[in-house]
Amino acid sequence: MNICILGAGSWGIAIAKLLSLNEHEVTVWSIDATEINMLNEYCEHKTKLPGVILSGTVTFTTDLKAAIEGKDIVVMAVPSPFVRDTAKKAAEFIKENQIIVSVSKGIEDETLMRLSEVIKDEIPSAKVAVLSGPSHAEEVGKCLPTTVVVGCEDKAIAEMIQDAFMNDFFRVYISPDIIGIELGGALKNVIALAAGIADGLGCGDNTKAALITRGIVEISRLGIKMGGSPETFSGLSGIGDLIVTCASIHSRNRKAGYLIGQGKTYHEAMDEVKMVVEGVYSAKAAYKLSLKYGVSMPITEQVNKVLFENYSAKDALFDLITRDKTKEVIGLTW
Amino acid sequence: MNICILGAGSWGIAIAKLLSLNEHEVTVWSIDATEINMLNEYCEHKTKLPGVILSGTVTFTTDLKAAIEGKDIVVMAVPSPFVRDTAKKAAEFIKENQIIVSVSKGIEDETLMRLSEVIKDEIPSAKVAVLSGPSHAEEVGKCLPTTVVVGCEDKAIAEMIQDAFMNDFFRVYISPDIIGIELGGALKNVIALAAGIADGLGCGDNTKAALITRGIVEISRLGIKMGGSPETFSGLSGIGDLIVTCASIHSRNRKAGYLIGQGKTYHEAMDEVKMVVEGVYSAKAAYKLSLKYGVSMPITEQVNKVLFENYSAKDALFDLITRDKTKEVIGLTW
Repeated sequence: MNICILGAGSWGIAIAKLLSLNEHEVTVWSIDATEINMLNEYCEHKTKLPGVILSGTVTFTTDLKAAIEGKDIVVMAVPSPFVRDTAKKAAEFIKENQIIVSVSKGIEDETLMRLSEVIKDEIPSAKVAVLSGPSHAEEVGKCLPTTVVVGCEDKAIAEMIQDAFMNDFFRVYISPDIIGIELGGALKNVIALAAGIADGLGCGDNTKAALITRGIVEISRLGIKMGGSPETFSGLSGIGDLIVTCASIHSRNRKAGYLIGQGKTYHEAMDEVKMVVEGVYSAKAAYKLSLKYGVSMPITEQVNKVLFENYSAKDALFDLITRDKTKEVIGLTW
Repeated sequence: MNICILGAGSWGIAIAKLLSLNEHEVTVWSIDATEINMLNEYCEHKTKLPGVILSGTVTFTTDLKAAIEGKDIVVMAVPSPFVRDTAKKAAEFIKENQIIVSVSKGIEDETLMRLSEVIKDEIPSAKVAVLSGPSHAEEVGKCLPTTVVVGCEDKAIAEMIQDAFMNDFFRVYISPDIIGIELGGALKNVIALAAGIADGLGCGDNTKAALITRGIVEISRLGIKMGGSPETFSGLSGIGDLIVTCASIHSRNRKAGYLIGQGKTYHEAMDEVKMVVEGVYSAKAAYKLSLKYGVSMPITEQVNKVLFENYSAKDALFDLITRDKTKEVIGLTW
């Protein structure tokens, strides 16, 4: 197949590696000429995914038209704040019924749209699928065993993407539940912030496991109200992705949380992490969504108080632990 | 309240600490006189939970009758292979309708009974509850924030236990689903072995998250067939406990798996870990249950092949990753 990847971040490059190993014709596009020159010269992204060498058959370009035209699949792998703009610019080169796989994660701030909705908004005829799961780019680049799920409204397209991506170290499941898959990926970063905050406060593995478990409970509660399936939140794109994000010492969200737990403001933490901390934006969006859909999200609420209302991290954790006595599962009754 | 704890292992001692902080009258029983003498002398279990000092109000005894008589709650905290024998011996001293909280984890090998069933089998009039969740004894002993779930058929008893155990660092949820709670706790060790094996083979966080996520999927599949509720497996005693067990460098199951992943036999691994590795027994029981209930449990099956059929760990992992293409959730359809 002919496949184009929009975005040359660590995830875009790891996917290029995977797809070229699967013997597809792969083109990687980036808006950044310096990045493309480096990739053309070294077949390696020296800063974002060092050590992962791409095959000489991969093409690198800053020409959006050339990148997109005649492709069987377009993979959208730019950071979430750039998805709308990239889709808008790509629209004029994209053929009718183009298959687009969104691998970015987030919720658009003003519209509260999922990223596949943003893409459909800009390119209405596109057949949009999503791919998500516990998949550090560094490990996929090293061909370590990884599993993901592809969601698409059209089963035949989901199977076609499964065929294109799957190999003997990259296992792909399929699902009709795009909504659940995207919400899990977008909202996990809020819980990763909370897990980092707990680490920064000196809590242990019990606390982190509690935040992860109760975190996915509140993500599911919102996600089900928004149309996702409960099982998806128990799956690879839900709890699976949440586990790697909260456990990883590389996660920017967890690290920023850690600094906040140690007493820094979120501005200081973002300065120190030196990169965009997506959880800070997702926290706002998640809180807005919880109000819009009338769903209780106690961890998300406390993260928002700590980030934006100068509430102390220690008090926030205490509030969570000492909430009213309750059942674990509201729906299970005696 | 007057509460007795049968068993002075790390978990029994941590619970004694918690309950004495909650101002209950606590008695700890052990069959081992050396252990009881040490506890009487130092109020500390120097080998199993060093650094956790119990209040002078806690009583330690080897006298089972004295330990049990007149107690509001009896906590069963002996290792799973000793639950039946301890219950059998305790039976004659136990009053009608005694509330017993089982905090041990496992499945009885020959009968495939859950431990609460084993207790009921020996003490039919007892009101048995279970308590489980992500709770390293070391962290509870240090009063780090921890969450658990208490399951009981009788809601009033569940609430009474919740009241007795809950405080501002130990959050207790309640649930009617004893079956789901016990199966999650018993079967997690098989998946922890698998996670350790993957680590020993040099896999990364993606692989571990995949094993945890797909592990709880197969545990749920069996557990639901056996009468548990799906939500329980997504909860603290299911995925929550599985996360801490698979992540912990202290877990014997994970460590034994690691050694097996590096090429040792399970006998060599057990010798090196120098303790009973519960997952080895649970693996057998889980596999028997999967056959009995006709449920597919691919990870459990591969763990059994590696442990008992000399199958190579590397091939077992390869088999898991390259299984037939499938949907993530069987029940979700287009």
